[in-house]
Amino acid sequence: MRNIKLTVAYDGTAYNGFQRQKNGIGIQQILEGRLAKLFGHELKMNGAGRTDTGVHAYGQVVNFKTSGTIPIERIAIGSRCLLPHDIVITEALEVDEEFHARFDATSKIYVYKIYPHVMANPFLRNYAWHIWRKLDTLAIQEATRIIVGTHDFSAFCAAGGKTMSPVRTIMAIDCQFAGDIFELSFFGTGFLYHMVRNLTGTLVEVGLGARSASDFKSILEGCDRKKAGITAPAHGLYFKEVRY
Amino acid sequence: MRNIKLTVAYDGTAYNGFQRQKNGIGIQQILEGRLAKLFGHELKMNGAGRTDTGVHAYGQVVNFKTSGTIPIERIAIGSRCLLPHDIVITEALEVDEEFHARFDATSKIYVYKIYPHVMANPFLRNYAWHIWRKLDTLAIQEATRIIVGTHDFSAFCAAGGKTMSPVRTIMAIDCQFAGDIFELSFFGTGFLYHMVRNLTGTLVEVGLGARSASDFKSILEGCDRKKAGITAPAHGLYFKEVRY
Repeated sequence: MRNIKLTVAYDGTAYNGFQRQKNGIGIQQILEGRLAKLFGHELKMNGAGRTDTGVHAYGQVVNFKTSGTIPIERIAIGSRCLLPHDIVITEALEVDEEFHARFDATSKIYVYKIYPHVMANPFLRNYAWHIWRKLDTLAIQEATRIIVGTHDFSAFCAAGGKTMSPVRTIMAIDCQFAGDIFELSFFGTGFLYHMVRNLTGTLVEVGLGARSASDFKSILEGCDRKKAGITAPAHGLYFKEVRY
Repeated sequence: MRNIKLTVAYDGTAYNGFQRQKNGIGIQQILEGRLAKLFGHELKMNGAGRTDTGVHAYGQVVNFKTSGTIPIERIAIGSRCLLPHDIVITEALEVDEEFHARFDATSKIYVYKIYPHVMANPFLRNYAWHIWRKLDTLAIQEATRIIVGTHDFSAFCAAGGKTMSPVRTIMAIDCQFAGDIFELSFFGTGFLYHMVRNLTGTLVEVGLGARSASDFKSILEGCDRKKAGITAPAHGLYFKEVRY
């Protein structure tokens, strides 16, 4: 059996997350169903990470085993007509039979996009979190320095998370403007459920002056979700990259 | 009666054009219906230009008469909760009672966005025309120089256009990349029906090497729509600005 690794970009607006939960359609379900036609049999994919309803991806990674004979360089092209326009396979590789998209991931990058402007932008309504006021981005940057490192991130883990250990390592957080959009890039070994959105929600409260960077430190050290800020909305979050 | 001028940005994806035709919902219909609540009576708006289904706007302009007493600076803010998130009022001004958004326009700017890339981008599927190959943007730029000036644009006017004269003046066309997106900005006194999309369709054929800049000149001078190229899709077009 061949083991195929796909990199997938998607606009998550119309889907009920990557992996279907309860009602609605998941992106994985679309990929498995539509690509079955390319490979000639049912597919079962492993995704590198789950994304919630409305969360986007530039570089989700999946792998699956197949007996299909389609040449590797035809997969991305052949999938164009099968997939809806909001899901795009950007790369296909044949990998070692042991490779597993989720278990072999060593680090991930998530990007959170914020649009701080007095006016809403109709083109960003599903693609960035609109904050009506200016943000003190220097204060945010100061607070991100507290996050970098290995910490118990319980204060930023949603109640629904079922992970055994709340300890994670964040290697770097980049803060920068891309045009009018303020982007926070989180590079870490792994993330708890809602962790990026919870960190961003509290960072934005720092940027609005509602909390200080030193408040942020106490919140992190307190390990109490109730002390931290709001959960940033799903539509500003992008699963950017998985490293192996 | 007060005369109010609004500048409106919208994502045209979900609408059947600015001015409703046949079935579906027009953006003007939404504006008139929702803003009536702010002004306390039915509204009848004049739009500076019609946009087709799927065409977007950064700066559509409308005006309307009202006996409503809402302060001018409260209109944009007050409309936020009334309008859907894909329609945003970016400016409201009280203008002379003679001002008419369409008849007083002296020039307009339309932008057409093209995404020339071997891979589709799921986030641009409704916001730029995806061309699978690289474009010879220098050849396009050369062809745009032929367009600038006062010409009979019959070769680029859709059959459905009902304008009396097909002569229009284009003062400038800018060609530039904004990131990965190639943008053509058309600055002119007025435009025939589908003129920007028809010009863009033929310019892209020049960029793909299917026609030369001198072919373009013959097409323009021939005044025959059948000799020109395809109509570029609606979703790459933006009504950017109206000048008075």
